Amino acid sequence: MIKTREDALALDRDDPLAPLREQFSLPDGVIYLDGNSLGAQPRASAARAQQVIGAEWGEGLIRSWNTAGWFALPRRLGDKLATLIGGAPGETVVTDTISINLFKLLSAMVRHQAERAPERRVIVSERSNFPTDLYIAQGLIEQLGGDYELRLIDDPADLPGALGADTAVAMITHVNYRTGYMHDMPAVTQLVHDAGALMLWDLAHSAGAVPVDLNGARADGAVGCTYKYLNGGPGSPAFVWVPQRHHAHFSQPLSGWWGHRAPFAMQPGFAPDPGIARFLCGTQAIVSMSMVECGLDVFLQTDMQAIRRKSLALTDAFVALVEARCAGLSLKLVTPRAHHQRGSQASFEHPHGYEVMQALIARGVIGDYREPYVLRFGFTPLYTRFADVWDAVETLRDILATDAWKAPEFAERGAVT
Amino acid sequence: MIKTREDALALDRDDPLAPLREQFSLPDGVIYLDGNSLGAQPRASAARAQQVIGAEWGEGLIRSWNTAGWFALPRRLGDKLATLIGGAPGETVVTDTISINLFKLLSAMVRHQAERAPERRVIVSERSNFPTDLYIAQGLIEQLGGDYELRLIDDPADLPGALGADTAVAMITHVNYRTGYMHDMPAVTQLVHDAGALMLWDLAHSAGAVPVDLNGARADGAVGCTYKYLNGGPGSPAFVWVPQRHHAHFSQPLSGWWGHRAPFAMQPGFAPDPGIARFLCGTQAIVSMSMVECGLDVFLQTDMQAIRRKSLALTDAFVALVEARCAGLSLKLVTPRAHHQRGSQASFEHPHGYEVMQALIARGVIGDYREPYVLRFGFTPLYTRFADVWDAVETLRDILATDAWKAPEFAERGAVT
Repeated sequence: MIKTREDALALDRDDPLAPLREQFSLPDGVIYLDGNSLGAQPRASAARAQQVIGAEWGEGLIRSWNTAGWFALPRRLGDKLATLIGGAPGETVVTDTISINLFKLLSAMVRHQAERAPERRVIVSERSNFPTDLYIAQGLIEQLGGDYELRLIDDPADLPGALGADTAVAMITHVNYRTGYMHDMPAVTQLVHDAGALMLWDLAHSAGAVPVDLNGARADGAVGCTYKYLNGGPGSPAFVWVPQRHHAHFSQPLSGWWGHRAPFAMQPGFAPDPGIARFLCGTQAIVSMSMVECGLDVFLQTDMQAIRRKSLALTDAFVALVEARCAGLSLKLVTPRAHHQRGSQASFEHPHGYEVMQALIARGVIGDYREPYVLRFGFTPLYTRFADVWDAVETLRDILATDAWKAPEFAERGAVT
Repeated sequence: MIKTREDALALDRDDPLAPLREQFSLPDGVIYLDGNSLGAQPRASAARAQQVIGAEWGEGLIRSWNTAGWFALPRRLGDKLATLIGGAPGETVVTDTISINLFKLLSAMVRHQAERAPERRVIVSERSNFPTDLYIAQGLIEQLGGDYELRLIDDPADLPGALGADTAVAMITHVNYRTGYMHDMPAVTQLVHDAGALMLWDLAHSAGAVPVDLNGARADGAVGCTYKYLNGGPGSPAFVWVPQRHHAHFSQPLSGWWGHRAPFAMQPGFAPDPGIARFLCGTQAIVSMSMVECGLDVFLQTDMQAIRRKSLALTDAFVALVEARCAGLSLKLVTPRAHHQRGSQASFEHPHGYEVMQALIARGVIGDYREPYVLRFGFTPLYTRFADVWDAVETLRDILATDAWKAPEFAERGAVT
């Protein structure tokens, strides 16, 4: 238990991951607790981008599709990423956005069910899921003519009752973006399989944040993003994972030329690639994609178990300090205390959460606000220190104790909140 | 008519666009005639990427979604791009890939027709269209359950006969990727409207290459890419244009959170943005997208009429020189001679086109090869000189006259050909 800033500094001195912080460029005067929204910049990223822009694009021009390996990049980076999520080689591609990959995968699963069990027309998800997941399911259902249903549960405990002989797919986000609640991936996957449905995991807040073993859990597909815990850069391309056993019978409707068996044969009829490349569609944003590798390369210097140990120590310390030092200041923990139910964040409700977060950001403690009421703090073991935890809590305590958040400028809402 | 290299140099001296070449970084010893596949690098791109990676991502972190204008980028760049294609403000977004944008727009159009004229279930296109366009239409039709038909014509003259009371959408690429044939946009659009169908243009080989006036032609929608003539960088995001009169009733199924009316309200139900932002889906690759602006900014220093004049002069000169200097060497022009039917390229068939192109590339004359038989040369008036035309033809002549293309190394096929 941290009682003083000295205690925190001592933990940092003993932290085996501490040296990795040097591989990130972080601004002075900032405590960054929003790596779950946009990861920090690996120092290697700027040089890598310059190489792609200068030598590969500028000098190599069109030849770089072959000579610099651009065309293979989605698969090569996918294989590197797969080591963090329990995927086998050839099962993952880095491509497009998480919303688009969700549409591909959900479409493929629904269609596969329509072929083998046409009575299965329900997609089960959580009302508290990140909204874009629900929007994509709604868009797909509308496109399919409305014969499908999106069934939303209000509590994880309601899942067994929502699954049945009518269920095609369960689409669940492993770690909730708002509360940090983490599902038991093997148990939920088993439950969904027992009901005869397919299991689609959204790993947006899991990849690089917590250990994930998709093949160990026998999941049927997953999507995730690279710009949060994986530190790929703003809006860096997302990923999609499909286990080998499903490649032959999962077809997705965004059947662009990059998913074709022979993209450069220029045949008028579509024939999907036999493997994971069938989940590709069009030409990828190579500069943004190249930087994904710089983020992944930091992870290869450690392992997800070490990251998990520090993540839990950071969130434990943060929760304990907030509850000790900010007692009576209207904060309420919404992240589970149980380790097995917690991702790599800690969220607190406050009746004026928006204003409090603006006041924190003004003092250089960057978390974010999520409707309604939630102050969200992400903990990224590669570059977050125990001293940051101490300092963040002290700043929060001061803002609440002095009512500093009541200053009128903190009530103004920007375009992106 | 160019008779000597001196004639070509004289044309370069008189070329009002010649100074713009200085704004591009081009390798020594290369004549680049493949800007229709991947545009050259504007010198401003590297510095812009460094700004986004360093100051905006590294220092600004999550705050840059607001402070650096990342969230507004698809619309802001869309408005800039719209000036090159005859779009009004608020009608264009830069986002995703051309294949994905085609899926969005084709879905929206088919659905709109299903609501007002359900008997219209045919998508008309050309067999010679770039394959991904056809693949996307096939993927959509399969997704919709097969009640739709993709009707392919073999010759532009067959279009009137292919349109009728069953036609929902005509999806035509304005300039053919292989031959460079250019359709008459206003006339074709009128023909399609007369048949009661909607007109979707693919501008992949038009935007930045030839003058385009989408609103003047009363087109119903368009997609295009930024990495060819617009010089946005490898795989830089594509664009989608929809005229304002269609915004309210075009719904697309990739309904991710960026297309929501209030993305950060985090509501579980999707409600589309009232304007063009409804064609956005997920979080965009900001570094790659930011560089699109560097390409667009070069165009703002001239105009499409001046670019068109030089483009036609370059392709006229190239065709005339090839036919004069390579006579009897088995080359056959497949690009129309008539100016009003020609994009900004010149393509020749040769029975060993692949090997000839590899030999050209080995000598620093970079065009590309397109199945079957076609040597394709793109002319980009912002950075291509008349002397390049002369030198390229002389290299081609020498390779053909000496059978240099028969060297065994030129027969080996790379992954991307």
